[in-house]
Amino acid sequence: MTDPRLEIIGRRLEKVGNIIAVSSGKGGVGKSMVASALALSLKEKGHSVGLLDLDFTSPSTHVILGVEGLLPEEEYGIIPPLVHGLRYMSITFYSLDKPAPLRGADVSDAIIELLAITRWEELDYLIIDMPPGLGDATLDMIRLIDGIRFLVVTTPSRVAYETVRKLLTLLRRLNVPVVGVVENMVMKPSGYIKKQANEDDTAYLGAVDFDTELEETLGDVDRLSATMFYRSIQRLLPDIKGS
Amino acid sequence: MTDPRLEIIGRRLEKVGNIIAVSSGKGGVGKSMVASALALSLKEKGHSVGLLDLDFTSPSTHVILGVEGLLPEEEYGIIPPLVHGLRYMSITFYSLDKPAPLRGADVSDAIIELLAITRWEELDYLIIDMPPGLGDATLDMIRLIDGIRFLVVTTPSRVAYETVRKLLTLLRRLNVPVVGVVENMVMKPSGYIKKQANEDDTAYLGAVDFDTELEETLGDVDRLSATMFYRSIQRLLPDIKGS
Repeated sequence: MTDPRLEIIGRRLEKVGNIIAVSSGKGGVGKSMVASALALSLKEKGHSVGLLDLDFTSPSTHVILGVEGLLPEEEYGIIPPLVHGLRYMSITFYSLDKPAPLRGADVSDAIIELLAITRWEELDYLIIDMPPGLGDATLDMIRLIDGIRFLVVTTPSRVAYETVRKLLTLLRRLNVPVVGVVENMVMKPSGYIKKQANEDDTAYLGAVDFDTELEETLGDVDRLSATMFYRSIQRLLPDIKGS
Repeated sequence: MTDPRLEIIGRRLEKVGNIIAVSSGKGGVGKSMVASALALSLKEKGHSVGLLDLDFTSPSTHVILGVEGLLPEEEYGIIPPLVHGLRYMSITFYSLDKPAPLRGADVSDAIIELLAITRWEELDYLIIDMPPGLGDATLDMIRLIDGIRFLVVTTPSRVAYETVRKLLTLLRRLNVPVVGVVENMVMKPSGYIKKQANEDDTAYLGAVDFDTELEETLGDVDRLSATMFYRSIQRLLPDIKGS
């Protein structure tokens, strides 16, 4: 028997124009920061934007956006609350601060449930903060969400890019479109990541310098919008509309 | 029916004195670097040491140690080859550079297989580079390996520690001993992590400064041993024998 929720997911997302999965393969590369800044920056330009945190491993966008004590409304499903002008949904609404040691199959189930119950309504963009790795969550998103495109974040490190390359290889093999690679946390410029991305036939979107002030902006979106990091994201990702 | 491999795993590890899982919950905190430096540093002191890379998400120790073209011998199981004096085993011996988009249950199975076939023989220490997250791999290691203890790595970031705290809570709940927390990649000292660790009743082992030279030591163990980072690990973890 087919899971009846699978068919609902398509309907839940049918009014969303662009679905961008911010992903990295590797953890700790600033993926959640990029996803949050991208969502805020698109909203600032007048787009309607949703942000969905599916990083079961280490959800962070609620800390970045300073979301506290907020709970989504229920009405024939879950309506994502407005947070700094974004429609926002996160697994932390349900797991709170408890450890969630989910087995792979349970992660799949939780993602399906979250996608099936959330009513996104009309949005120009839905930005998804993905879990690291090439595991269940990544495979599910590709399988379940029509038209999903990936924005891939890496650091300048060879070790990080080794993992990012595996993600790119997997996406290519599954014919999933990739917007491009953002090189984050750059301390001294080297052409390494650009060269690798070219070899992997992936657009290199540019470098974002390491920003030591970022930690202090946690929870304060106004301060985040004033950082060099935020302005770099605005500049590198002015528009990521589908063709 | 019980998986017959589960009983073999105990026998495979019965000659290993100390089993230390280097873990973080959060990715990208330098876990693989800490695991590699710890293993090399214990060996330097005259101990017999094994290093097992179970980070299916983004294996890195083979890059750090410069392992290339090496394959383990088979003889009633798999004998981990000697790499810079360490008995070394990694999932990359089998997955090579291919993406391994494993579902949770497959990850479990691959870990069980790897633990069941590997003959560790007599070792003072086995250091395990764990995958990030609280998923299948972490749960399996706790379930399958008697006497395992966790060394937890974090960065100074509040976002990183949010995830680390979930790992610590889970370990406490499952009665798994924790050696302590290492604060890695410190750029400007703050008492934040130390204070958090104290609140979580976990030993704070100390801070390791961010070392910009580390990236250039990849693949060169002699250069790694000469870094400030390596000396910090030696100093903070002089001995992690069980009581």
